[in-house]
Amino acid sequence: MSEPQFKKIVVFGVGLIGGSFALALRKANAVGEVVGFGRSAANLQHAQELGIIDRAGGDIAAEVGDADLVLLATPVGQMAELMAKIAPHIGVHTLITDGGSTKSDVVGYGYKKLGSKIGQFVPAHPIAGAEQSGAAAAGADLYAGKKVVLTPLPENSPPAISRVQSAWEACGANIHLLSHEEHDAVFAAVSHLPHLLSFALVHDLAQRDNRELLMSFAASGFRDFTRIAASSPEMWRDICLANREALLKELHRYIDELSTMSSALERGDAAKLEQTFHTARELRAGWSEK
Amino acid sequence: MSEPQFKKIVVFGVGLIGGSFALALRKANAVGEVVGFGRSAANLQHAQELGIIDRAGGDIAAEVGDADLVLLATPVGQMAELMAKIAPHIGVHTLITDGGSTKSDVVGYGYKKLGSKIGQFVPAHPIAGAEQSGAAAAGADLYAGKKVVLTPLPENSPPAISRVQSAWEACGANIHLLSHEEHDAVFAAVSHLPHLLSFALVHDLAQRDNRELLMSFAASGFRDFTRIAASSPEMWRDICLANREALLKELHRYIDELSTMSSALERGDAAKLEQTFHTARELRAGWSEK
Repeated sequence: MSEPQFKKIVVFGVGLIGGSFALALRKANAVGEVVGFGRSAANLQHAQELGIIDRAGGDIAAEVGDADLVLLATPVGQMAELMAKIAPHIGVHTLITDGGSTKSDVVGYGYKKLGSKIGQFVPAHPIAGAEQSGAAAAGADLYAGKKVVLTPLPENSPPAISRVQSAWEACGANIHLLSHEEHDAVFAAVSHLPHLLSFALVHDLAQRDNRELLMSFAASGFRDFTRIAASSPEMWRDICLANREALLKELHRYIDELSTMSSALERGDAAKLEQTFHTARELRAGWSEK
Repeated sequence: MSEPQFKKIVVFGVGLIGGSFALALRKANAVGEVVGFGRSAANLQHAQELGIIDRAGGDIAAEVGDADLVLLATPVGQMAELMAKIAPHIGVHTLITDGGSTKSDVVGYGYKKLGSKIGQFVPAHPIAGAEQSGAAAAGADLYAGKKVVLTPLPENSPPAISRVQSAWEACGANIHLLSHEEHDAVFAAVSHLPHLLSFALVHDLAQRDNRELLMSFAASGFRDFTRIAASSPEMWRDICLANREALLKELHRYIDELSTMSSALERGDAAKLEQTFHTARELRAGWSEK
């Protein structure tokens, strides 16, 4: 058997994202040893029992220097601190990637905390379900056929980008390259704003005395529209704040759109309403998730 | 076999709503003869072949007078004209109900067009799928276990209400009574506003040069949030205009809610965002469609 592509990887945060990354690389015979770090000793032990990691790491300094690849798969809120801890120990051949769902903030932390090692960090956002968490939720096929967005930095060398890309490809993912600004603008529009809007609608209903009557007449359209309002409040608080600028831009644009529709409704402009709905229907009905 | 509860019913508009009403009453042995009226002779012939109606009506004056029950199942936009046509011919024992999804406008037409016969009209809104149309989509079980809202008028006698209620009950529906104002306020909040919001989001994306890039990263949250943006533009134009006042009230309230969230985002108020999302999550996660 040939040498694996990555002799040693270190995963910080062995949950759904980190654990699935390790399992997928193992399945592809692309990794030798997997070392895991995390806040919960019980979760790390469980991850070891499940064969996700070979062992839990103890000393960051000792583990990071000879690692081929480090994955930062903690919540984004913990990444700045984590980067500061690993920065002094990153080896000359060590590459770093992450699994954060916002990118400009993570890139900002990288510039601040990784210093001269910034060129070894190739940021990534795997677009894969976030409904479950913990090592137990991890699976070797989580990324199969899914999109992973890489947002390379000017400091990244082409071989560094290519090697991180090949790790995510070994997980079965389809790779897309965007700048971190483009990434955050795109996800503000098609993911973060819809979540905010859905939360806002249900929150508004929850304030009312007749909320039970209202909810008793809610049907399938409401059900689908508000499914994402049952998402994790903590996670979405963090995402909204992390991508605040792009999200605010989208939110203001959307409020303008609603004001236009409000005016059309007020003046009974049937043609404008129909044209708006028609344009939306064309785009939505012609779209299919890939 | 005992006499059916309704010896003769007349259905105006033999599509999903009207056709299913006829089929359900037949299945319950609650109807003798079913006469259908409609704009499309081909659809009426098809409805007859499918056993939905016994025959297509020709002369309104001749058919309505001895009918026990008349169902108005045309689009709401055609109901005023239809009421004007049938008003002079409504028999003393004839009751009228409808299948319109907005009620204040239909009630308004009733007062204008039915004149002294207004007490014989018991308005209804069956909450049942509107994705398909035409007689071919009709089924005897469409209303089974579904909600039908009756919005009785002060002019309705208790026996009139009770008899119309028993017809919808024979279709298998669960009956709820609301005033027409309450009905329209409830559906503006839990149905009409979400449709408008979903259309608005997709319409805004459709205006952009990078819409294909945006849509290529849309995922399952977007899919569910925007499913209703693929609804019929004509139907929703009509519903929005028919329920304009209640919908505008909801829309303005929602824009206020978004402005509050925008301020919270701008000042980075993590606690406010989390509390809003948490309240929404509680209500949504605790709700199940009945």
